[in-house]
Amino acid sequence: MFEAEVKITLKKTVADPQGLTIKHALESLGFTSLEQVRMGKFITIQIKAKDKAQAQAEVEAMCAKLLANPIIEDYTVEVK
Amino acid sequence: MFEAEVKITLKKTVADPQGLTIKHALESLGFTSLEQVRMGKFITIQIKAKDKAQAQAEVEAMCAKLLANPIIEDYTVEVK
Repeated sequence: MFEAEVKITLKKTVADPQGLTIKHALESLGFTSLEQVRMGKFITIQIKAKDKAQAQAEVEAMCAKLLANPIIEDYTVEVK
Repeated sequence: MFEAEVKITLKKTVADPQGLTIKHALESLGFTSLEQVRMGKFITIQIKAKDKAQAQAEVEAMCAKLLANPIIEDYTVEVK
């Protein structure tokens, strides 16, 4: 069995109101050195596969079909 | 300026209905080799700091004070 870590982030050109809200909240707590905060998703997937390459390919297919929105999001898959 | 990547995950003992819903959705799309899917958050923070260690310490303080709920969540901070 393999464990894949998927990071899904908004593309740089897409506005991120949630990240902005977190930035303001952190600033109001005294963290004043912030330049930018961006919010994304982190999904861990345990999958049965015959090898690492197959696990990687399957999880990338999951991202393309369901997990990420390719119009506004980027994703990276790392199989351990 | 430093960029920190924060991964926030539910502790292993905490139920994750969102991850379960994603698992079922993936299975209905034909991905039948899944063992487990867990949903977390991925936050990228750009911060001004005099060195990497200071950036790491500040972002860890942000996690402890606001970003993560230590009762149900674990977090890791990686400064690049």
